[in-house]
Amino acid sequence: MPSTTQHSFQTLALTRHIERMKRHKQEHNQLGIALSELFLGIAVEDKHGKLDIGFACHDGTYNIDFAVETLEGEQVGDSIAEHVITSIKEYEGKNMYKFAGAGLSQQVVKKSPQTPVWLWLELDIVPIVVKAEEGGCLETAKKMNDVLGVDEMADSLARKCLMWFGPSYQPRLSVGFSNKVEVDLGARAWMTSIEEYKRTVNEATWNSALKYAGSLRERKTKIAFFSATPQGGGVALMRHALIRFLRLLGVDCTWWVPKPKPEVFRITKTNHNILQGVAEEHERLSDEQAATIHDWVQTNADRFWARDGGVLLPRSKGGADVIIVDDPQMPNIIDISKKLDPDRPVIFRSHIQIRADLANTEGTPTAGVWKWLWSSAQKADLFIAHPVSDFVPKDVPKEKLGYMPATTDWMDGLNKEIRDFDTEYYLHQFNTECLRQRMVTLQYPKRDYIVQIARFDPSKGIPHVLAGYAEFRRNSRYCKGKAKDETPQLVVAGHYSVDDPDGVRVLNETLEQLDNEYSDVKDSVVVMRLGPTDQLLNMLMSNARVALQLSTREGFEVKVSEALHKGVPIIASLAGGIPLQVVHEKSGFLVEAEKYLDVAKYLDVLFSDDEKYKSMSEYAASHVSDEVGTVGNAVNWMYLADQLAQGKKLQPSGKWIWDMARDQVDEQKMKGEVRLPRNRTT
Amino acid sequence: MPSTTQHSFQTLALTRHIERMKRHKQEHNQLGIALSELFLGIAVEDKHGKLDIGFACHDGTYNIDFAVETLEGEQVGDSIAEHVITSIKEYEGKNMYKFAGAGLSQQVVKKSPQTPVWLWLELDIVPIVVKAEEGGCLETAKKMNDVLGVDEMADSLARKCLMWFGPSYQPRLSVGFSNKVEVDLGARAWMTSIEEYKRTVNEATWNSALKYAGSLRERKTKIAFFSATPQGGGVALMRHALIRFLRLLGVDCTWWVPKPKPEVFRITKTNHNILQGVAEEHERLSDEQAATIHDWVQTNADRFWARDGGVLLPRSKGGADVIIVDDPQMPNIIDISKKLDPDRPVIFRSHIQIRADLANTEGTPTAGVWKWLWSSAQKADLFIAHPVSDFVPKDVPKEKLGYMPATTDWMDGLNKEIRDFDTEYYLHQFNTECLRQRMVTLQYPKRDYIVQIARFDPSKGIPHVLAGYAEFRRNSRYCKGKAKDETPQLVVAGHYSVDDPDGVRVLNETLEQLDNEYSDVKDSVVVMRLGPTDQLLNMLMSNARVALQLSTREGFEVKVSEALHKGVPIIASLAGGIPLQVVHEKSGFLVEAEKYLDVAKYLDVLFSDDEKYKSMSEYAASHVSDEVGTVGNAVNWMYLADQLAQGKKLQPSGKWIWDMARDQVDEQKMKGEVRLPRNRTT
Repeated sequence: MPSTTQHSFQTLALTRHIERMKRHKQEHNQLGIALSELFLGIAVEDKHGKLDIGFACHDGTYNIDFAVETLEGEQVGDSIAEHVITSIKEYEGKNMYKFAGAGLSQQVVKKSPQTPVWLWLELDIVPIVVKAEEGGCLETAKKMNDVLGVDEMADSLARKCLMWFGPSYQPRLSVGFSNKVEVDLGARAWMTSIEEYKRTVNEATWNSALKYAGSLRERKTKIAFFSATPQGGGVALMRHALIRFLRLLGVDCTWWVPKPKPEVFRITKTNHNILQGVAEEHERLSDEQAATIHDWVQTNADRFWARDGGVLLPRSKGGADVIIVDDPQMPNIIDISKKLDPDRPVIFRSHIQIRADLANTEGTPTAGVWKWLWSSAQKADLFIAHPVSDFVPKDVPKEKLGYMPATTDWMDGLNKEIRDFDTEYYLHQFNTECLRQRMVTLQYPKRDYIVQIARFDPSKGIPHVLAGYAEFRRNSRYCKGKAKDETPQLVVAGHYSVDDPDGVRVLNETLEQLDNEYSDVKDSVVVMRLGPTDQLLNMLMSNARVALQLSTREGFEVKVSEALHKGVPIIASLAGGIPLQVVHEKSGFLVEAEKYLDVAKYLDVLFSDDEKYKSMSEYAASHVSDEVGTVGNAVNWMYLADQLAQGKKLQPSGKWIWDMARDQVDEQKMKGEVRLPRNRTT
Repeated sequence: MPSTTQHSFQTLALTRHIERMKRHKQEHNQLGIALSELFLGIAVEDKHGKLDIGFACHDGTYNIDFAVETLEGEQVGDSIAEHVITSIKEYEGKNMYKFAGAGLSQQVVKKSPQTPVWLWLELDIVPIVVKAEEGGCLETAKKMNDVLGVDEMADSLARKCLMWFGPSYQPRLSVGFSNKVEVDLGARAWMTSIEEYKRTVNEATWNSALKYAGSLRERKTKIAFFSATPQGGGVALMRHALIRFLRLLGVDCTWWVPKPKPEVFRITKTNHNILQGVAEEHERLSDEQAATIHDWVQTNADRFWARDGGVLLPRSKGGADVIIVDDPQMPNIIDISKKLDPDRPVIFRSHIQIRADLANTEGTPTAGVWKWLWSSAQKADLFIAHPVSDFVPKDVPKEKLGYMPATTDWMDGLNKEIRDFDTEYYLHQFNTECLRQRMVTLQYPKRDYIVQIARFDPSKGIPHVLAGYAEFRRNSRYCKGKAKDETPQLVVAGHYSVDDPDGVRVLNETLEQLDNEYSDVKDSVVVMRLGPTDQLLNMLMSNARVALQLSTREGFEVKVSEALHKGVPIIASLAGGIPLQVVHEKSGFLVEAEKYLDVAKYLDVLFSDDEKYKSMSEYAASHVSDEVGTVGNAVNWMYLADQLAQGKKLQPSGKWIWDMARDQVDEQKMKGEVRLPRNRTT
């Protein structure tokens, strides 16, 4: 077969469609563009000192275009990546395309490991590195002495790539053998690099991470996390991010989830609500229900983790060195691990805001569930909680108790910087969904807006958000006398989670309140439950003038730090871990959630006083602690795993794990280093 | 593990959202509802004379709800299916959900083979039967003596099911080992049954199908189709439908496609255009290009079909008994088959409208491509063409020539009847896409509309569609004096195929014409390229008052019969096989495409004269020939394969294969049976 000759992309631009979009933008001063979602394949081939790069462009049904470009002379990784990024950016812009994912051959990442990372960080394309043995025709080609042209390879990679995507152009979750969570599609999605992580923290934090990673690598320590669900929610978000980073550091860390059993999830969900004191009054955990959970955990362990090769087997038989049970659904894992290998360290992390006051009161439903939870959790070597002492029942002995905040990831879809082109795409996607649901649309940038991003949960204080916004619109100095379309809009949005009966109720109530109490401002308020696309929330948060977080009860709520990191000042309530993240009057304002006059007053400040706004925005963006990012999270867990696996006995006694971890490797607090205040854990 | 107890679905309805939708519907007299797309799992379990049915409801991330219902007493297939359909219908309606797919266990279809079929035909849910060995936890469960509860099974099935779906909630295409097209996800999607097919044709047609199927089964005849692409376009649609039906009949028929090579597709696409006389003047097929195609076909044959176990091997070594080459991309397959097994019958089907006049004229580019094509095609035993003699170059010896129309499938997404609930869903999806692209929306049922469904291709006569509609709007008796929103809209829509440079050009020109020549009616015209969802086109066609098909050149265009089958009278042009399908003044009107005054005149008749409209609509719906449906198509192919595989020599000599097939099994033309006129093949 003759090898492929150079070839340019040939698609003609849909000029009329593009014109219509532009015209609309001008006429309405409204951003937002409709792009066609596509998939990309990228392959390279060395040809006597030249490099052929093949691109294939696939619409899910057909190959619709392709190009073969030749780079002359020796190429380094950076220059290849730059060429690829430039080509794609230009092509996307010209044709109004949006690539959701790109399949890359292993040769591409060998030549240029930067390429996948830049695809993700600069062009918001999920890069999927296709393993040769999975390539189908790639594999066949190998057997046949590489007769495949670079165009065929690219086409095959594009098709392979799109197999990993499900509805709404999101990569599908992958759970593998023995129910191991295959983070990043089993390491196929290369979205970050060590260098990129390094940039997110200060030197002392980075050094700490490297030191622990070195020790864990050297000792081949195996860390295993257990939690109930592989996707959605804070625990899963953190765990994906942690394992992504630890893999780059070469640390052996795995994550295991049970087979979902709807009947059990119904029970554990209720337990969750009871522990937080928000269940219906009659709800109790019965003995039968406890037995059902027990049987379910045991069955999963028998099926997956305690058989030959299983992660829960004793260390002498190849099991993990440290076990971490990461939520209250499967406390029985602690019993099972201790039974199989009594000396192996087990950590229990309590990630919810347990109403310690109720747990401590005999006879309450909370005390009932807590008793059940504690009967297993007490066997763990450590009890890790959010840094709020009110969340820790008195049964927990002080020496076992350590604090650790929730964290977020600065390079995932929720937080990475999104270029204007993609911002317009997501904005339009958001507004299209509003139209679909016959909801008010967001008129940014014609109008500024205020945002609260949170689930539709009774604890999230949405009524206070509405009250504060209405007061601001009705009576503030800033809004007085302004025409409606000169005032800011309000956006209340969160990921969709239909499973939550509360969510439906709260959303219904919110819409009802708007109809009744706030009909005068209702047509400026956008209330939306959104699909699983992180970038939508990112876009909403990034472009807001002000963020709100008026929860009445809260665990840690790292969304607060996410807003600050983007330089968006926040007005937030004094609940749970929120006040640890905001410096009042500097990065935002702390209020009592129900004091809507205060909320309105601070909104007025943030809209009226441009100078103050600017300085607060800058302060916010530059005062986010390393403790709330993935690297910080990794330092905490690596420290614990490294020490415990060496047989050291740890007694945090109510300290922050962060402080112990940094002390242990002698990485002093740096000048100007931001730490979360420790004042709620005393 | 205790078995699962009865349990009802628990999701709360989003009443405010539903109210908003209803209010909008009333206020605007506009259909269209926004539904949440979900996946379903269905499992059953026999329990001492009772039957537990487990339902699980999954949003792509989470299990969001489940139910376990118990049917008392012995159940037959129909009653189980009825219960399932009723439960789901009620649940969907109450919660505004739309299930895109359902995973069913093999036990479900064993108990009730009707269930998957009804899911597809009544509720528009793609039913996927999960094989036990693929079930993941189902398999594990088997090993562990079936400890899985019916809720767990249903959940597992829902998750398994959603893996088969790609973006836009469409099942993904599946191409398997040696590039065999896995129709219906490798027989996992059970959308039809023998009984349903039987209803689509008359007795003589049905008997013919059964007789040939019996003979082919008995002789274990193996039929193999080859074509260039597994998806999109008429050939692929027909082939999926044919294989779906033949599988139910137990006939061994397979379909093979090459690995896509973008560079080759570029060449074959141009060949295609040259054969039809619509390529740019300078385009020719060069010797190098012919060699590239040859090498590509040979490589694919070597890789997949001519190796051990390959379908192109001689019959003595297990190869197929009859080879059918179904498009002009891979004529070399004919040479390869004849070389490997000279006596094995090979059929070449020419599915495009070759400009025979140009092919017959020495020195034209068309003659050049034809010569190349014929050098292989002449080795085939038969040459099958659309029933239009103008499409057959004179090189084809009369005795080898037989005619066969294109066909459609009455139960696929394009044609099956869609209930109101789903109609509203697809209408809203269509309008949302219009809004996304900032296009005029369809205001049905407030306004009636006229539709042309076709690709954006220069041959489809879209300028004539605009001219006819504008004339109707400006000067017809019916529209005179009517306010704009009392006049009908025009919809011009087709599946999106970005790969077609022509498509972009034609769409651009259409939008430009609307801006310039038709700015007075422009805001009543919806011009849309749509994604791959067949039901969108179905919805548009089904609810139109009148269909247009004003092609200037055409092969057969079975869309015409699709419109008639739905009882939608059509105004169509005298091109290719179109006039064979329409009875002028009875099921529609035949016009010269460019005579827009005639188009407008007939539109006026169809809108003004309700009585005539009704009788034409009825005539249309009841006068569609069995020849244009899947069963008819199968009769044709089964006849050919059966006879040829028995070593009989067939000499159609310009006859319709249909006539030969029916004669052979002595199934006479029935009283009142509709046949396509034979007048364009003389």
